[in-house]
Amino acid sequence: MRVKELSSRSGVSVPTIKYYLREGLLPPGKLSSPNQASYDDAHLRRLRLIRALVDIGGLTITAVRQVLSAADTPDETVPRIFYAAQESISADPALPRDEDWDFAEARVAELVERRGWQVKPDSRAWQTVVAVLVSARQLGHGVWTGTLDAYADACERIAAADLSYIEGIEEMDAMLEGVVVGTALGDTLVTALRRLAHQAESTRLLGAES
Amino acid sequence: MRVKELSSRSGVSVPTIKYYLREGLLPPGKLSSPNQASYDDAHLRRLRLIRALVDIGGLTITAVRQVLSAADTPDETVPRIFYAAQESISADPALPRDEDWDFAEARVAELVERRGWQVKPDSRAWQTVVAVLVSARQLGHGVWTGTLDAYADACERIAAADLSYIEGIEEMDAMLEGVVVGTALGDTLVTALRRLAHQAESTRLLGAES
Repeated sequence: MRVKELSSRSGVSVPTIKYYLREGLLPPGKLSSPNQASYDDAHLRRLRLIRALVDIGGLTITAVRQVLSAADTPDETVPRIFYAAQESISADPALPRDEDWDFAEARVAELVERRGWQVKPDSRAWQTVVAVLVSARQLGHGVWTGTLDAYADACERIAAADLSYIEGIEEMDAMLEGVVVGTALGDTLVTALRRLAHQAESTRLLGAES
Repeated sequence: MRVKELSSRSGVSVPTIKYYLREGLLPPGKLSSPNQASYDDAHLRRLRLIRALVDIGGLTITAVRQVLSAADTPDETVPRIFYAAQESISADPALPRDEDWDFAEARVAELVERRGWQVKPDSRAWQTVVAVLVSARQLGHGVWTGTLDAYADACERIAAADLSYIEGIEEMDAMLEGVVVGTALGDTLVTALRRLAHQAESTRLLGAES
């Protein structure tokens, strides 16, 4: 199909498609004449993936590029793809490594040991958990760290569900795409469902809202 | 204390403190002379809260203002505060209300009925869950919606832990602050822990990474 049809089928404007082509997010089409390129379903699918990562996952174009390049690398293992997707999507928590940090980091290390998790202490995910505990404690919500195990337990269930879905996908490309989509869209899903659960639980415990 | 001490104790620069004062995020200090104001521990605490919402929660200044004004409103009930905090922090998912939307929305309504949740269909949280399902389906991950119940179950556990912490706080101001901190920091915590759980689960199931 030509770029106009690609645009109408994907709902992405022609200038935006050209921008993605220039930025290397979308592979070039096949040249059918010196200034006419044709695109296929793989382009359409990739465009939808980019829009989902930007619109629903809230990723920047730079983060989208990193995630896609991890998914496009041949012979990557699933744990490595997961890790690359995570690192691209996560912000680096910029907090000083002071006493509060050391205290919180020790709590995270204990949690990881209790759960028997094999994870990387230098990953952004680990550092972000530490940063949240530091902030919560500085705000006088130190006790809140007591809920860490409830969160960890819940996240284990979610990860098991995610992995069992990923394992069920036979085609490698689709599986890798599932990892990156699941990492980005899953963030949005879990925070939105947690809010619905807050609405439900606070109304149940503390009375109707209106 | 003077603004310089407030700055050194909070780690927030004097120009930034003055910006927050102008924007109304921080209440004005007590005038001790015509051009000298003095600040107390409530200012320090509020400054830390603002920094946590911005740095860890990733909120814009506009979102911080909305969250703080909900927490500062007297006689608000906890469900209403939760709801105000949620709405301020959540983006509005901009997707067309087409057939895909109606299909996904029906799945969310069924989920909410299965769980017995009393929640608002017009809330951003609800709309966001629908938007994620629409995107996942358009990307060919329709089956992924089958993991919805696992996510909902996990989020119920998290919400119960959050609410039991909130209920344990006696002072009203601190409780309200706990709601807003918990909503914003909790988003970051749950997504980071989910990633650690992905690292752990993918390594456990699919072999070591290196």
